[in-house]
Amino acid sequence: MTALPTDPRENLVRLIRCPSVTPLEAGVLSALQEMLEPLEFSVFRPVFAEPGMEDVENLFARRGGGGAHLVFAGHVDVVPPGEEAAWRLPPFGGEIRDGMLFGRGAVDMKGGIACFVAALARLLERGDMPHGQISLLISGDEEGPAVNGTPKLLQWAAERGERFDACLLGEPTSREALGDMMKVGRRGSLSAAITVTGRQGHVAYPDRADNPVTGLMRLLAALKDRPLDLGNERFQPSNLEITTFDVGNPSVNVIPERATAAFNVRFNDEWSVATLQAELTKRLEAAAQRDEIGRQRITFAIDWKAAPAQVFLTRNELLTNALAKAVEDQTGRRPEISTSGGTSDARFIKDACPVVEFGLVGQTMHMVDERVALAELEELTRIYELFITRWFGAQS
Amino acid sequence: MTALPTDPRENLVRLIRCPSVTPLEAGVLSALQEMLEPLEFSVFRPVFAEPGMEDVENLFARRGGGGAHLVFAGHVDVVPPGEEAAWRLPPFGGEIRDGMLFGRGAVDMKGGIACFVAALARLLERGDMPHGQISLLISGDEEGPAVNGTPKLLQWAAERGERFDACLLGEPTSREALGDMMKVGRRGSLSAAITVTGRQGHVAYPDRADNPVTGLMRLLAALKDRPLDLGNERFQPSNLEITTFDVGNPSVNVIPERATAAFNVRFNDEWSVATLQAELTKRLEAAAQRDEIGRQRITFAIDWKAAPAQVFLTRNELLTNALAKAVEDQTGRRPEISTSGGTSDARFIKDACPVVEFGLVGQTMHMVDERVALAELEELTRIYELFITRWFGAQS
Repeated sequence: MTALPTDPRENLVRLIRCPSVTPLEAGVLSALQEMLEPLEFSVFRPVFAEPGMEDVENLFARRGGGGAHLVFAGHVDVVPPGEEAAWRLPPFGGEIRDGMLFGRGAVDMKGGIACFVAALARLLERGDMPHGQISLLISGDEEGPAVNGTPKLLQWAAERGERFDACLLGEPTSREALGDMMKVGRRGSLSAAITVTGRQGHVAYPDRADNPVTGLMRLLAALKDRPLDLGNERFQPSNLEITTFDVGNPSVNVIPERATAAFNVRFNDEWSVATLQAELTKRLEAAAQRDEIGRQRITFAIDWKAAPAQVFLTRNELLTNALAKAVEDQTGRRPEISTSGGTSDARFIKDACPVVEFGLVGQTMHMVDERVALAELEELTRIYELFITRWFGAQS
Repeated sequence: MTALPTDPRENLVRLIRCPSVTPLEAGVLSALQEMLEPLEFSVFRPVFAEPGMEDVENLFARRGGGGAHLVFAGHVDVVPPGEEAAWRLPPFGGEIRDGMLFGRGAVDMKGGIACFVAALARLLERGDMPHGQISLLISGDEEGPAVNGTPKLLQWAAERGERFDACLLGEPTSREALGDMMKVGRRGSLSAAITVTGRQGHVAYPDRADNPVTGLMRLLAALKDRPLDLGNERFQPSNLEITTFDVGNPSVNVIPERATAAFNVRFNDEWSVATLQAELTKRLEAAAQRDEIGRQRITFAIDWKAAPAQVFLTRNELLTNALAKAVEDQTGRRPEISTSGGTSDARFIKDACPVVEFGLVGQTMHMVDERVALAELEELTRIYELFITRWFGAQS
């Protein structure tokens, strides 16, 4: 009999050695499949396509024939390593130095997958695998456009009749020390570009021109001149950042014709995408019409970027308590129950079932020398073991 | 004996047919030289050079051995014709339709030169050429960098011992009808670029970043939030225009590192370049330090563009009256004595002698189908004749 994949370090080394930069599979799903089959999982590898995008291979694995259904979600794709020569150890080598395992994806998030697999292997080996159903929902496209990964995988699973009761997403949520933070929600994200069209002319004759730069500055100032909200006990305040502002006029004598800017809002549950769009549009319209010092109306167009992320908050106490207690029992730390940070694939999963997120310390994610402490891998494996046991134990 | 160049139309056709787009001579100075030599002018063609720039050929011509010295200034270089197919008649053809002579430079400002030469030819032919000295100071680089043209030509003339008592610059100053405006001064021009350096970061974590776009908007708003001045009886109010604003950040998730904008100020005689730089710097420093809502100090750099233009005003009444009366006698219109519009080579000439500007209606300058009415050429020739006679007559 093959040895079960009980060692998270060995699992992670295998996964890191596959250079699965989005959207490449690079052998990583095969490695994962080889770990899961001895654990009595049925493994599926659906490939999703979209015109104009590269195909993406994903993985869905399930075990158990009935009862409560827990799904672990994650992704095997990684961001590019950047300049490989800048790494202390090779980004796809899976080498260890000073008690740290180096490699792209070590924390984001092949590490979480390696620990979850090890937790399952230990439960099976000890005869403690709970009754019920366990699945893994693994995207190959989380760091990319996130179109041919989790959203389509969820739809594919639903069409096969899969129903989930709860989801644990293994993203690196810990900040300084393993267990100091778990996430039960995420702010939404909405982006847009604004273009102001003025009238070109010579700077010496501003009355015959209409400067779109000044106009766009007025519109953007109106978006930021008072807070969207003050936050609440669940979420930090919503925030708008202007991410670019472009004119491209090389001539110091010419008032340009057009100016464009883009912004992104991270918004809390005081808003939906629709109510936020309405508020921002209202502010823009008001600023465009204001005319207290004889300025002309600003002609602008707003282009809302596709696929905004809705805000969500998981209120399932059975799930959040099972996770928080598992973390506290193992680490002695009471995790902060947070909704901070960027978006994640949880924004798709929350429509299928309650979802919480917990994983490694994310400090080195997306950086050169991404790495994880071996001790942390061991500790996360134990937390996942405790969580699985607790969650199934709490099902009546 | 060769016929003297008494017909401004013929003179202008010859000049237009030389495609002297800056910095090309294209035969235009030779054509002008051939007109001037029968008028008893000594003609010089100094070429000026500068590292990194194309050489520019210019023309200086003089007649008379003593007495009051009037210099006519102008330029034979023209801006490019743009899309030639868009012209009703070829831009370098010098063709006439509906009483209008078409061509690049027809009004800006081969037309003015053609009329001044015709005026001289008529005075000579009639035996009315005044006693005294008359020169032509003709740049080949007014529409370009304006480095190897008028400024060096003035220096060259000074080194030869030339001293001027007054200058008439033949730029197209008329607005709607010939004679409705003459110029006795020009606003100054000052340009700069401002770069704000922030700290790059993810939009989801604005506290860890420092958005330079917002900072730059604050600085620029401070430059424009109150008028520089209200103008005076001599000049319109000074005005600042933001001409570009550039970031170039393609990612909606990223707060950028840096943002740059440029601005230009057209300023009146309430300011010098130095006092204006001091005022703008003061406004920027104040805005960068302001911190009423806990924002951090804005780190910025200002890069003043080389060769700002100083403001000037000609207060020589003998000169301005001679011109205004000549215009009124010919057209019946009392010209508006103006300091409006862009800069001109008068900003260099004003250091050598008092300078006034008067010429054709400028409406089609720099445009497709640049053209001048034949009747207007005749009328401007007569005005120049009257002006020359009046100005020399007023010398005691």
